[in-house]
Amino acid sequence: MPFSALPRPPYWTTVFVSKRRDADHAGYQAASDLLGQLSAAQDGFLGIESARGPDGFGITVSYWDSLRAIKNWKRQADHKLAQENGAAWYEHYEVRIAEVKYAYSLGDHGPGPADI
Amino acid sequence: MPFSALPRPPYWTTVFVSKRRDADHAGYQAASDLLGQLSAAQDGFLGIESARGPDGFGITVSYWDSLRAIKNWKRQADHKLAQENGAAWYEHYEVRIAEVKYAYSLGDHGPGPADI
Repeated sequence: MPFSALPRPPYWTTVFVSKRRDADHAGYQAASDLLGQLSAAQDGFLGIESARGPDGFGITVSYWDSLRAIKNWKRQADHKLAQENGAAWYEHYEVRIAEVKYAYSLGDHGPGPADI
Repeated sequence: MPFSALPRPPYWTTVFVSKRRDADHAGYQAASDLLGQLSAAQDGFLGIESARGPDGFGITVSYWDSLRAIKNWKRQADHKLAQENGAAWYEHYEVRIAEVKYAYSLGDHGPGPADI
């Protein structure tokens, strides 16, 4: 999965950390794809990045232009997860919602490197 | 890798998203472990979670009690990465530093679920 091209901070992020119950659970991939499409179609969506290891432990980070956009997305995602029985897919998950204040990348320490 | 037990927000996080240049690069695992130990030994460190897929794309999220703690950690990590030639391990990476405002987990929608 590629890196997201994001604007300069500030913007918002949701960090979704999860342990899959069963890597081969029926319907997971299709529904996961559907949630990804649902995110990308939301107002205020900026990007999404995801990694999951062979142990089923994964992290998905999505980026949004405002807290309001996250709230709107969460309302739809909760509804969709309930419809699809999404809780059955996960042994556990944690969600953290945060405001990104600084960002830099390899070879580009961005504005104010001394500041951070 | 387990989930981190974290206090209630607010706290801070760094989201490190990276593409490994070579999954078998000599010395990577040892130095990665060393950086993890370096993080855990820092004042203000709260936890770390990490996932990397077979394609070498990975996300590591660390949690801190303040921006100051992140700055102190970054100073040491930069120094260590330079010593170990860490840039050679990564095709690309992005770092986002954010303040966590809300958190909830499976079966626990935390305080103010209606608020988020």
